[in-house]
Amino acid sequence: MINYPIKRKTQVKTTNYANLGMTLESDIEATNTYYLNHGIAVIHKKPTPIQVVNVSYPARNKAKITEAYYKTPSTTDFNGIYQGKYIDFDAKETNSKTSMPLKNVHEHQIEHLKQVNQQQGIAFLIVHFKKYNEYYLLPAKVLFAFWDLQHDEEKGRKSIPYSAFQEQAYLIPFGYQPRLDYLKIVKTKLF
Amino acid sequence: MINYPIKRKTQVKTTNYANLGMTLESDIEATNTYYLNHGIAVIHKKPTPIQVVNVSYPARNKAKITEAYYKTPSTTDFNGIYQGKYIDFDAKETNSKTSMPLKNVHEHQIEHLKQVNQQQGIAFLIVHFKKYNEYYLLPAKVLFAFWDLQHDEEKGRKSIPYSAFQEQAYLIPFGYQPRLDYLKIVKTKLF
Repeated sequence: MINYPIKRKTQVKTTNYANLGMTLESDIEATNTYYLNHGIAVIHKKPTPIQVVNVSYPARNKAKITEAYYKTPSTTDFNGIYQGKYIDFDAKETNSKTSMPLKNVHEHQIEHLKQVNQQQGIAFLIVHFKKYNEYYLLPAKVLFAFWDLQHDEEKGRKSIPYSAFQEQAYLIPFGYQPRLDYLKIVKTKLF
Repeated sequence: MINYPIKRKTQVKTTNYANLGMTLESDIEATNTYYLNHGIAVIHKKPTPIQVVNVSYPARNKAKITEAYYKTPSTTDFNGIYQGKYIDFDAKETNSKTSMPLKNVHEHQIEHLKQVNQQQGIAFLIVHFKKYNEYYLLPAKVLFAFWDLQHDEEKGRKSIPYSAFQEQAYLIPFGYQPRLDYLKIVKTKLF
């Protein structure tokens, strides 16, 4: 399976405290670095999977990849360990004010999160509502409920409404260090 | 940090049962697929980290990476969850009959395994002694002991002797399905 990279809209970097981060991903990576350096948790982003087709050796001992393609990841982007617990999540952003479209999540990611859940891991999404500049930790079980119901003619819908985030997800405070202290939510709400 | 890919010696594929696998890595991946399909554990190999320098779009919606380089991984290759426990390990092969050279392990991998250990994760190496066709699960703590002592003038050495594997590591049986049932060892010896 060959895939195309997702083009991110470049965000304007301002001195506004709430917009400190460039992207959700870099905010999470900065948070993970903070956790690691303070001995709080060991959580890393997985590298983007790339299918290498051709490699040349223009200089001695230096491999240059000259043809390669992005592949579809088979899991979520982030995983690791926190106080003996396995942590697994993905990060999603939405420009919508009313909901997070389910098409932001891939079928294989749902399957992976369900497998993690079955092994008693702590699985969730971090969802950034950009219009509100709000970050939510959405427990995987809430995600599964909406996902599994989406094709139901009566109750199904193609997105998770913002109201569901207010009621069934947890707001992650945005700070300076760490920027997105999602493990605080994990510990108080999901342990 | 730009790095070079490790050239693997191609192994001759024979019908010999013990040589079923092509490489240690593919044997572990086949084992992990077995674990996943049977609901036993969720353990994946992380993609090789690659620094992408140039991407072209020769056809509509199709990204072709035209310049990229291998990067040094910052962690081990494999991690995941097994019965609620966080699992983290790397795979090493050696042609030596007498020891596994410590240079097969990178400083950052040791650091990562120590961090995992501090968070109460289950950390180890799977080591293949190719000359004996034996696979050992080496608990991280044994690795740390040899690693930390290596510069000691009296007791230090640059490798872990084969005898230490026989005494302080666990032989992993090679089978058909799964090929390398390392989680059996994890459960009986490391839980």
